[in-house]
Amino acid sequence: MAPVLCVGTVGLDTVETPFGRVEEVLGGSAAYFAVAASLFTSTQLVSVVGEDFPECHYDLLRSRAADLAGLVTLPGRCFRWSGRYHFDLNRRDTLETQLNVLAEFRPVLPPAYREAKFLFLANIDPMLQLSVLDQVRHPRLTMLDSMNYWISGAREALTEALRRVDIVLMNEEEVRQYAGTPHLLKGAREILALGPSALVIKKGEYGAVLLHGDGYFYCPAYPLEEVRDPTGAGDSFAGGFLGYLAQTDNLSMANLRRALVYGSVVASFAVEDFSVGRLLTVTPDDVRRRYREFREFTYFDEV
Amino acid sequence: MAPVLCVGTVGLDTVETPFGRVEEVLGGSAAYFAVAASLFTSTQLVSVVGEDFPECHYDLLRSRAADLAGLVTLPGRCFRWSGRYHFDLNRRDTLETQLNVLAEFRPVLPPAYREAKFLFLANIDPMLQLSVLDQVRHPRLTMLDSMNYWISGAREALTEALRRVDIVLMNEEEVRQYAGTPHLLKGAREILALGPSALVIKKGEYGAVLLHGDGYFYCPAYPLEEVRDPTGAGDSFAGGFLGYLAQTDNLSMANLRRALVYGSVVASFAVEDFSVGRLLTVTPDDVRRRYREFREFTYFDEV
Repeated sequence: MAPVLCVGTVGLDTVETPFGRVEEVLGGSAAYFAVAASLFTSTQLVSVVGEDFPECHYDLLRSRAADLAGLVTLPGRCFRWSGRYHFDLNRRDTLETQLNVLAEFRPVLPPAYREAKFLFLANIDPMLQLSVLDQVRHPRLTMLDSMNYWISGAREALTEALRRVDIVLMNEEEVRQYAGTPHLLKGAREILALGPSALVIKKGEYGAVLLHGDGYFYCPAYPLEEVRDPTGAGDSFAGGFLGYLAQTDNLSMANLRRALVYGSVVASFAVEDFSVGRLLTVTPDDVRRRYREFREFTYFDEV
Repeated sequence: MAPVLCVGTVGLDTVETPFGRVEEVLGGSAAYFAVAASLFTSTQLVSVVGEDFPECHYDLLRSRAADLAGLVTLPGRCFRWSGRYHFDLNRRDTLETQLNVLAEFRPVLPPAYREAKFLFLANIDPMLQLSVLDQVRHPRLTMLDSMNYWISGAREALTEALRRVDIVLMNEEEVRQYAGTPHLLKGAREILALGPSALVIKKGEYGAVLLHGDGYFYCPAYPLEEVRDPTGAGDSFAGGFLGYLAQTDNLSMANLRRALVYGSVVASFAVEDFSVGRLLTVTPDDVRRRYREFREFTYFDEV
């Protein structure tokens, strides 16, 4: 089955939630994505780390079917992020961001990667996302994530990138911010009008929505008893979503819906523990079982 | 088919939203409930109005299949509420509340109403809710709504009322406030442990959830282009929910799910215009069509 090419960050996170604190654990969008996608397919991982990136993390990523030919090691220290979540886990404060080697990141795809059919452009500088789009030859499906920082600070490049991808992944605030309207659906249509065939809006504890043409699909989040660490939920979602699409190689609308549910399933596991901890123990059977639960708690019949 | 007995408020609302302003229009929980329920069945309406309640509102309620034998007119002025919604419609400021005759409200059920099979206790003083529960003989289904004001100010009476009803209707904040926990599911379980067989949690623009025993059902809100006035959404939801259950007289879990969707459908119409305006023009066909749309935008298949 086709691998997914993912370009994003790999780094070390220090995270505090009401349930505990972890220091310098494996983090970054590409790391979460690759481990999540590994439940379905392998990942060609393009990112950068410093010389202090622990050997065990290389091993972990390699063991999760990640092809590390595109993971560059540069002189210097790894990208580091540190954050603290509030009591209700819906808000977080970034305590520190050290770009370190990430400041030098200029993704260059190994020749084999240029043939990638499925591409995830995680949340990085849209100029870099554009340069990756220039390097892939004939992708079947490209998906892009971004954040408020680029929406306000690199709007032009981001707009160009939005024009060139198939699926855009944003949260509600980002859609409203980009489109400059409190009306989510109006904002969504404005983004779709740029060219993407679909927009996935992440709603955090309320789930995710897939908009495509006149189509609309709402998948609620899994009703978790306790969320231990929401870090990486969006990238894990993307890994499940795109991993499933690559595995099935089917871009029908019905399959996009299934992919959205699989993304939600994988994200629901990801937040059950710190870092990628829970994603390392979850089995394909667990994933299938939770998919069925999603169906059970959203199903109602015709009348 | 069985009517629904509803005990709540009827009054005059002055509402300002980004889309306009209306003065002294028909409002109150029982008014919204009755008009919403009229899409499915008739309502025995128990409430109080003042001598200044306009004749046209009596006519309107009567024309919407509301039995007004329990609508008492007392000397004095009607209950009045005035509020202003913020730009995003998710928050509102109450500008003024005039209880007027509502301060004297002591619901006394006409004899025929004591045989009611379906009862909605709208958001009023839980002492009054308890007195209504004392007056009905053998209800098949009782549902209760409340608000933060009673949770903090009349907790004991509210708890007693919660113990005695079948279904509790609360929004997320009310569940968290009542249970004193940020964990919604834990809070829900605490409320269910008091005795109700089901809890419906309203999530506003994110829909509603039905919890019962081990069961969980999530119905998203309808993706409306524009909401003109969210006032009465919860009571319209209750009217659709309980109206459908009374019409079908079927309390199976599958039918409770359908009822939750119908409640969401009716609420989605209610917020399309001020007061009960939109509910007066919507047809049973419109309701069925939107129910099918709800199914279409939540459906995904087994794998």
